[in-house]
Amino acid sequence: MAQRTVFYVSDGTGITAETFGNSILAQFAISVRHVRRPFIDTPDKAHQVVREIAETGEREGRKPIVFITVIEPEAHRIVCSAPALVMDMFRTFVEPLEDELGITSNHRVGRFSDVSKSQEYSDRIEAINFTLAHDDGQSSKNLAEADVILVGVSRSGKTPTSLYLAMQHGVKAANYPLIPEDFDRGHLPPALKPYKSKCFGLTIAPDRLSEIRNERRPNSRYASLENCRAEVAQAEQMMRRDGIAWLSSTHKSIEEIATTILRDIRPDRLVY
Amino acid sequence: MAQRTVFYVSDGTGITAETFGNSILAQFAISVRHVRRPFIDTPDKAHQVVREIAETGEREGRKPIVFITVIEPEAHRIVCSAPALVMDMFRTFVEPLEDELGITSNHRVGRFSDVSKSQEYSDRIEAINFTLAHDDGQSSKNLAEADVILVGVSRSGKTPTSLYLAMQHGVKAANYPLIPEDFDRGHLPPALKPYKSKCFGLTIAPDRLSEIRNERRPNSRYASLENCRAEVAQAEQMMRRDGIAWLSSTHKSIEEIATTILRDIRPDRLVY
Repeated sequence: MAQRTVFYVSDGTGITAETFGNSILAQFAISVRHVRRPFIDTPDKAHQVVREIAETGEREGRKPIVFITVIEPEAHRIVCSAPALVMDMFRTFVEPLEDELGITSNHRVGRFSDVSKSQEYSDRIEAINFTLAHDDGQSSKNLAEADVILVGVSRSGKTPTSLYLAMQHGVKAANYPLIPEDFDRGHLPPALKPYKSKCFGLTIAPDRLSEIRNERRPNSRYASLENCRAEVAQAEQMMRRDGIAWLSSTHKSIEEIATTILRDIRPDRLVY
Repeated sequence: MAQRTVFYVSDGTGITAETFGNSILAQFAISVRHVRRPFIDTPDKAHQVVREIAETGEREGRKPIVFITVIEPEAHRIVCSAPALVMDMFRTFVEPLEDELGITSNHRVGRFSDVSKSQEYSDRIEAINFTLAHDDGQSSKNLAEADVILVGVSRSGKTPTSLYLAMQHGVKAANYPLIPEDFDRGHLPPALKPYKSKCFGLTIAPDRLSEIRNERRPNSRYASLENCRAEVAQAEQMMRRDGIAWLSSTHKSIEEIATTILRDIRPDRLVY
């Protein structure tokens, strides 16, 4: 498979260019070397990146692909002159937006808003703190404040999903393990009873679960396929009986799981 | 300020459309209501979204703006027919890429790769686990494995930044609080000595720190401006003396802090 070097150049973090470029390149059967170059906000830094792009093209004998989100006009002009296929993501869409909105864009440097003054940002940080304090059933305090409570057997993906929900969406996500005591009792942990409507279950294929657990505790009963099969079956039965919505994390990323959870139990959080 | 409703429509999570749309809209002085509509991968769901877009436009008397990343051809055609300013992010850049690469894109549904088979994905999950186990100086075990070790006074932003580095970049980020004992001794915590080159410091303006600490422990000595001033001064002095690179988190988001850390001490992680 042909390899290409792709640059993401920005006068900000470059995260937007990288997210977008990655998604679009996934449409092509090529192997990609990714290079992110953030904070390119002066002519000097822009010239330096252009040199790097030119050298890469010469070395590889193929034009690099460059996704840019550069606002600062002089740096923008210089980066656009690179000997490469330059995909100018902002400018392409700014003109139609200016026409539709009837106003001109700022074209200004320093798009970073001051996070110390942003309510949305402090909500995200508070959600992260809440989620950490309510990881793995550590605390039943303040569950009334939780937006979402994830339940599932140990290692089904609850912790990373909770943290993602908090970090990206400012969603306070507690999580509770389902353990043999719960299965014996045949019901969700008692602390969760009043909050059934905000519970969401994660399940996972027993063979995948066994693989993951074996990395932590090799050859334990905890990790054995037999035990994983039994725990998963009991957890699924309990969620079905208690009317908890759930999905399988086996082949899904935390981004996909989190988006599904929001769509299904907190659709209001997809509108803001 | 005029308000506009902006839709992010995707047959995937919609995160790419949302990230991109948010960045470009930040260039305009308008107030935006954001609506994310993920997993629009059938004609039925596409028709439903088009109806929602049309109703919104009628109710508000203004054309909605729609950012789309829809691959499935029939759903794509339907969403593009919405009475709105439709910004087709993928198609706009696919053609020039096809020309440059000399291959056609997949235009296929189900872009989701199976995460259970992705090394990059399991590295991210492993990094999250490592970071949680090494949060707030909890453990000095396996510090040799850490990619980055953040240091700073309590509430300077170490935990959210560490989690972001792990979750987005698969970077194993430990973090250590700097506490009065360290200041008395005048040196970094002894466990960190062998790893100075991967330490990075966070500092913060004393008045902001005092505000944040007051939310946790109102009117405590811990939160007092006087104590915050003293701790920050001592921490900065120590980092300067020990030659630790550092930045102030006061006005920076975790995304900006994380990108700066990678650029400064792990530039290799910006290339992959």
